[in-house]
Amino acid sequence: MPDSSSARNLDLDPAFPLHRGGKIEVRSTVPVRDADDLALAYTPGVARVCSAIAENPALAHDYTWVSNVVAVVTDGTAVLGLGDIGPSAAMPVMEGKALLFKEFAGVDAVPLCLDCTDVDALVETVARLAPSFGGVNLEDISAPRCFEVEARLRERLDIPVFHDDQHGTAIVVLAALRNAARLTGRPLGDLRAVVAGAGASGVAVTRILLEAGIGDIAVSDSKGMIYEGREGLNGVKQALARDTNRARHTGSTEEALEGADVFVGLSGSTLSETAVAAMAPGAIVFALSNPTPEIHPEVAAKYAEVVATGRSDFPNQINNVLAFPGVFRGALDVRAAAITENMKVAAADALAAVVGDDLSATYVIPSPFDDRVAPAVSAAVAAQARADGVARI
Amino acid sequence: MPDSSSARNLDLDPAFPLHRGGKIEVRSTVPVRDADDLALAYTPGVARVCSAIAENPALAHDYTWVSNVVAVVTDGTAVLGLGDIGPSAAMPVMEGKALLFKEFAGVDAVPLCLDCTDVDALVETVARLAPSFGGVNLEDISAPRCFEVEARLRERLDIPVFHDDQHGTAIVVLAALRNAARLTGRPLGDLRAVVAGAGASGVAVTRILLEAGIGDIAVSDSKGMIYEGREGLNGVKQALARDTNRARHTGSTEEALEGADVFVGLSGSTLSETAVAAMAPGAIVFALSNPTPEIHPEVAAKYAEVVATGRSDFPNQINNVLAFPGVFRGALDVRAAAITENMKVAAADALAAVVGDDLSATYVIPSPFDDRVAPAVSAAVAAQARADGVARI
Repeated sequence: MPDSSSARNLDLDPAFPLHRGGKIEVRSTVPVRDADDLALAYTPGVARVCSAIAENPALAHDYTWVSNVVAVVTDGTAVLGLGDIGPSAAMPVMEGKALLFKEFAGVDAVPLCLDCTDVDALVETVARLAPSFGGVNLEDISAPRCFEVEARLRERLDIPVFHDDQHGTAIVVLAALRNAARLTGRPLGDLRAVVAGAGASGVAVTRILLEAGIGDIAVSDSKGMIYEGREGLNGVKQALARDTNRARHTGSTEEALEGADVFVGLSGSTLSETAVAAMAPGAIVFALSNPTPEIHPEVAAKYAEVVATGRSDFPNQINNVLAFPGVFRGALDVRAAAITENMKVAAADALAAVVGDDLSATYVIPSPFDDRVAPAVSAAVAAQARADGVARI
Repeated sequence: MPDSSSARNLDLDPAFPLHRGGKIEVRSTVPVRDADDLALAYTPGVARVCSAIAENPALAHDYTWVSNVVAVVTDGTAVLGLGDIGPSAAMPVMEGKALLFKEFAGVDAVPLCLDCTDVDALVETVARLAPSFGGVNLEDISAPRCFEVEARLRERLDIPVFHDDQHGTAIVVLAALRNAARLTGRPLGDLRAVVAGAGASGVAVTRILLEAGIGDIAVSDSKGMIYEGREGLNGVKQALARDTNRARHTGSTEEALEGADVFVGLSGSTLSETAVAAMAPGAIVFALSNPTPEIHPEVAAKYAEVVATGRSDFPNQINNVLAFPGVFRGALDVRAAAITENMKVAAADALAAVVGDDLSATYVIPSPFDDRVAPAVSAAVAAQARADGVARI
């Protein structure tokens, strides 16, 4: 355990003083200056509001903060690239998420780090919390549990449930890939892709690319390519094997990549210069592992036409903050009962469209600080929620 | 279900427009203006903070908001005088509590209205949430479940767990009674009291008055006085019967009140003028039911020397907001592992002392807007936590 001198040493890293005392607070939005204020905001006035909601539950959306507040829920099992560090150590990330929700889309968010990892326990706990929230953002829950937790909560709750590691990443990757395909003059349906990584983000990226009509896609995990009949696949990977890898690649990621158009790295593995050189002409390389991309972007750019990473210090940063604030803003604005697959694709299309005519090899995705992004995404998500019949206002 | 015209009618009551959109929000306390800010508050900077906490869990108190945030938890089963209105309809009260925590003591509080009423489920859910909070304020959970929920969580968690309906009320009643006894020139040990009500607040008031050394005390419920051997008492009332009612009153509240010094009403029942007239000289009447006191305070004042109510429009308002913000402020300031009985009595003594030399029959308890209250209560609670060995800084 560090003594006070090493605690002082921590503060030499500017991230630590910035985090002191946390990064968020709860504030009152109504005055409490005197007894009259108190008599409205608290007893006896508040009782009349409670009674009205008890008679007509829909009024909770009008007269509480619930319709603007999202629970950011984790069990701390897959935090950033740090792995299973537990709920307490996960809190700084969840607070960070909460502040991004507010800064980028005016969504109030509450970080909840849960001291349980069992699927049943996670599902029950979130379901019991649901009356307090307008939506649930699941975060940093390890695969494959995250798939079942999300699926069961989506089935059970009538508010949006969205595992950001899956769908936030998937939306931004699809947006960037749409623009990269446009830049290189090919329809998405003509592209063959290889996704390295079959965790939360790898699976969701694959699913959204299939949904969007990609030509072909194959997925690898730490044991190599995933194909039908491979021994020891869990249920999620068996389903992937059925729906992907039409060419039935059975070897390594780099073997499958030969002649492919697109690489999406989401596994923390490495990609050799030779493998990129062997891709098809006009290759698209998304080396998204953080902080170390699968291949240095400048090396990849020797062969690929478009290169993206997860880092802010290179062009084309694939950053979830481009998606989740606007997605929830749009869903909350229409009181959506769920976030459908169409709504995710609509979010990606809106995000891609922000780039517009400025499209170039170093600009296939907007900056996180482009203030057109969240309004564009939220408007598209809200419109699609209406079209899909899940909007309630 | 009201149509839009009755929704408009609701807004004729000023409590409704004030509640529109809720009463609290989550705000960022750090800047997020550019990529450099984002790289500290979120990835990659945040990962270094997470890693440090994973190595040394105590750092969570320094580098997250956890040490200043309290969960305000209810199941919506005993909301104000409204009863079991469910979790959604309870939210306005919990938001109100959260805003009072912040306004009166700088404590961040998150309202959590749970969709479960089973004791095991409530205990498990709160225990799973515990890593995210520096304390738990239980609220409006019906008796007798509230006693077991609180006792089990206190046993299980190493953060303060405080059922405000019990202990907040108890602290303020003890403070007011200390001052009323001082005013009428009698030590607490010479007073005989009758408490009407054996729910959450009645039980806790009785317990703190016993702790503080009251002369004698007897408690009634809807069936009359509680005494040893009465049929059908639940466990909590059996324990009360053992520890109270030395004179073994077996009849009605009003019969027991004959010649008594103190009445504390916490049951929503009524008290006749005749009964108050039959109390001992210098009687003290706390008619605390809201919005309708057990007896009109002006009628009681014809016989009693001190009268208090729960209302802001009469003198001597017994209001929990005098206690809970300062109690949690003090407990959080020293990172207390629990709130001990001594800490509650210390809070009451500090609250009573604020009145000082201004003591009078219409001023036995400070105003909720007296800004000396929360600092006095929190200092006393923190000091007592140190004395009791539950402080961790």
